[in-house]
This record gives sequence, C-alpha cells and structure tokens, in this order.
Amino acid sequence: MRTVTKDTLTQAFLDCCDPDTDPRLHHVLERLVHHLHAFAREVDLTHDEWRTGLRLLTEAAAFTTPERNEFVLFSDVLGLSSLVDMINTPDAATSSSVLGPFHILGAPPLPVGGDLKGDNVGDTVVVEGQVLDTAGRPIPGAMLELWQTAANGLYSNQDEAQSDWNLRGCMTLGDDGRYLFSTVRPIAYTVPDDGPVGALLHATGRHPWRPGHHHVIVQAEGFQPLVTELFPDDDPYLDEDAVFGVRSDLVIHYTRTEERTALPPDLLAAATLEPPFHLVRFDFKLQAEA
Amino acid sequence: MRTVTKDTLTQAFLDCCDPDTDPRLHHVLERLVHHLHAFAREVDLTHDEWRTGLRLLTEAAAFTTPERNEFVLFSDVLGLSSLVDMINTPDAATSSSVLGPFHILGAPPLPVGGDLKGDNVGDTVVVEGQVLDTAGRPIPGAMLELWQTAANGLYSNQDEAQSDWNLRGCMTLGDDGRYLFSTVRPIAYTVPDDGPVGALLHATGRHPWRPGHHHVIVQAEGFQPLVTELFPDDDPYLDEDAVFGVRSDLVIHYTRTEERTALPPDLLAAATLEPPFHLVRFDFKLQAEA
Repeated sequence: MRTVTKDTLTQAFLDCCDPDTDPRLHHVLERLVHHLHAFAREVDLTHDEWRTGLRLLTEAAAFTTPERNEFVLFSDVLGLSSLVDMINTPDAATSSSVLGPFHILGAPPLPVGGDLKGDNVGDTVVVEGQVLDTAGRPIPGAMLELWQTAANGLYSNQDEAQSDWNLRGCMTLGDDGRYLFSTVRPIAYTVPDDGPVGALLHATGRHPWRPGHHHVIVQAEGFQPLVTELFPDDDPYLDEDAVFGVRSDLVIHYTRTEERTALPPDLLAAATLEPPFHLVRFDFKLQAEA
Repeated sequence: MRTVTKDTLTQAFLDCCDPDTDPRLHHVLERLVHHLHAFAREVDLTHDEWRTGLRLLTEAAAFTTPERNEFVLFSDVLGLSSLVDMINTPDAATSSSVLGPFHILGAPPLPVGGDLKGDNVGDTVVVEGQVLDTAGRPIPGAMLELWQTAANGLYSNQDEAQSDWNLRGCMTLGDDGRYLFSTVRPIAYTVPDDGPVGALLHATGRHPWRPGHHHVIVQAEGFQPLVTELFPDDDPYLDEDAVFGVRSDLVIHYTRTEERTALPPDLLAAATLEPPFHLVRFDFKLQAEA
C-alpha cells in the first residue's frame, strides 16, 4: 500500500475490503468510492476546498434536530432525493416525490369525505379520486395519509399557533378504492435557508421556494407504498422547485364550482363541506409488489 | 422542470444555478453532482439505502465534538483525505500525508537538539536531518511542528494522564535548515471505531489500525507548507494503514546505536539525550510557492 498513487488509491481501497463483505454493500461502496475519488481528481480538489466541505457537514450537524435534518435538505437541493424517487418509481405507477422532513407518524383517522380544513384560512379545495392498480382496477382497503401547510406556509410541527394535527389525516378506503377530502389550497413556501444549505443556495443564485403541494402516502397490502405530492398547476414555482419534486403527472388543475352537485355522485353524501369549492380528481396508481 | 427524468435531472440542477456563480464553485459543484447522481443511478439506490446513508451522516454528527470529527474520519477511511494529499503534493517535494484530528495549534518551542521524550516510557529515537528546497539547497529559518502518541497509543489531548503538551513541540531552524530532536518510538494505534465509521469498517472486514508515525508540519517563507508523517519501516500495519497515509518516501529505518558519536557532528553538542538511541536521518523537501 505504501506505493499507492492517486491513480491506484481507489483500487487500494477495494483491496482492503474483505471479499466476504455483503455483495450489495460491496457494490454500493465500490461505486461510491469510485465516484468520490473521480470527483476529487477531476477538480484537483484543494485542501482548503476539502476543509470547506467538511465544515459544511459539521455545520449541517449543528443545524440538525429531530424536527429538521439538514443532511436530508442537502440531499433535496442537490437533487439526490428526487433522483432516488425517480429510480424507484415503476413506469406504470404514479410518480413518487419527496417525503420531506415534516411527515409525522400517527395522524388521526379521517373518514372518506371528511374535512381537514376546519377553521383554517384559505380557499376550500376538494380532492377526490381512486386508488388503482397499474391495470386500472380499484385496490380495496388502501390507506391514504395526508399532510400539508396552513395558509402561512408552515406545517403544524413548525408552528405553535396550529393544533398538533392540523391539516393531517389518515383515511382508510373501501373496496371501491374511492376517496374524497376537503382541505385548504396549499401555497408556496421556502425550505429553511438559514443553515449551510441556504449558504449553498445563495452562493449559486438559487431561491429556496417550493411550489405549494398536498403530501400523500398511499399504502395497500400487496402493493409498493407510494410517497408523493400533488401540485396545483398555477403555482409560480412549479417549474423551479428548490428540491426538484415536481413531475408532470403530479400536476393538478382545480375547477372552481359553486354547486354541490359538481361533486361525484357516489361521494356526494359523504362530503362534509359546502361550496364554493376548488375541485380536482386525481387517481393514484400503485405497482404490485414483486 | 416538471418533465425532468432521472436522465435529465443532473442538467436540471445545473440549469438552476446562476450563470454568474463563482466559476470555481460552479465547476466543483457540477462535478460533485454529476458523480453523486451517477453513483445513485449506477447502483439503483433504494430508499432504504438512501435513508441508511443519511442515518450514518446524522450519527456522525452525534459523534462529532471539538476533539473528534467523525466526518474527517469518514474522509480518512474512504481514502479521500489521502487522495487530496496526493493531488496537492508537488512531484519533487516530500509527500504529504494526513493531518489527522489530533493536531493542536500553539505547541511550546523546542530548541534544535531538544528532547520531547522527557519521562515517557518507550525506546528513545533521535530524528535528524535538513529542510531543503527541491534543488537540495537548505531553506533558512524553517519551522517544524512535531506531535505523536505516547507509549499507550494516545495523544495528549485524548489522555488525561498526559500533560497538556506531552510529545508536542515547535522548532525554529537556523540558516543551515538542520534539525534534530529526541522522542519515543511511536507505536501503532487504532482510529476510534465506536461510531458509524467503525460500523463501516466492521461491515467490510477492515481493522481500525494505523502504523505508528511521527507527525510533522514543515513551514518556511516562500514555500508551500508540508503536512506529513514518518513511518518506522518495521511496523506490522505499514501496508494496511486504515487511512491510507503511508507513502514509500515517508518510510524511515531506525539504526540502534550505543554511541553518542553516531550523532551528526554538527548537532552532537546540541543533542540533550544519552544513548542507546534509535537514530534516523530524514530530509524534508519543500516546493517553492508559485
């Protein structure tokens, strides 16, 4: 190893890994170190730049709390989170999109037709549709988890003025896979930009805005879980999401209606809120497990 | 951006960076994100694996203190630190090697010929030589910073039983660039392996040992500073350093002597310790600043 050079160091790394290492771990590490070393060589990384990178990681550590993970945010703004979503989205299924740092397990149950808006300020939107397999057949007994920001652009766990589970709910669907809920229209907001991720955004002339979105997780037995977001089509940041989360099949168009009869007939009775609504239909397609 | 795919996401990232971004920052980021994305695509990185990577970074944050930086240690065991050293070592100069996390600014002065061993247990070694330019001419007024572990494999700032500056010193050289100091023979030790770096080492069947070494920083006006290490040639871990720090030109051979007259005549009077010694000569070659 003492004769190692910058051109043989990557192999020297591999040579010191036990051949009995778990094959998947070995493959992932091999590619990781290959690209890490190639990066350093291609840019002739200086000691000062290396120290800057380590300082950014150490600062990210200082900004990381149970409510905010600056490493996830780095992954988001560098496009890695969205790339992992794209790699793992089956072609025939609805696109996945970033989970984000504001999901909390344990949201309260919400019946089909139920309302999340309560006394929240903002336009009322009604989102309805169906959970389907990739052949278009309803999936019985699916579960929908929903969360989003209030009109001030904050999630309930970022904002002491909101109740703990404001704009969060968990809906269990029937055999027809049909869902409907009312809520407020989500609006654009900024990712936290007071830490090292913000420094990176500012240094590259990027803004921290995300277009407004409804967060949804769809799960059903025998199917791959879907973590995704729905984006209103008139949001000014739709094509410049700071975390690269928008996919064309996740863009929705609300239709304003004054008439309750615009609601789907099968869920008309279940819908709890009165018009005017901004109404949208969206069907989720799930890939069966291998 | 809403039509972005896993094959166009890297370009989408670049497109959102301001063209007026500092050109070097833009280049480094472009290559970094290129390789980060290529890595994820090539291994079809799963969400579970992505979460594992982020968990390792978050755990590294929890292990990082002013005395121990787990991110530096990740860089070390993945070979990145050594690669940066190699990239930045001029061909005609002495090889650089890892700084490590145990350097402290402000070591007390040590005269030429002075002793670091004091009452430390271990074989006495005398290291002497000269600080030269790449043409072999002495550099006047160079400064040598020295630090190493005690016989228990710990640095003074890891070990409450040692005095604050044990086995650390800072030597200012004369016009002839000659130096000599006595100390204890350094021994092999392990990098900390109770954190996520240790988990990675264990999962790949690697040990945490480093061969024993003298740490040296050499600085002189008009020359690039040299951060390096000297490694005794009979250390069992010489060819399996956990952090890839060994270079063939940094391997030294001690010659045991019972005679004080084995010391170099010009520094015989200055040497403060009595034989038996393990004696070694090593000349440092520095590259002039551009």
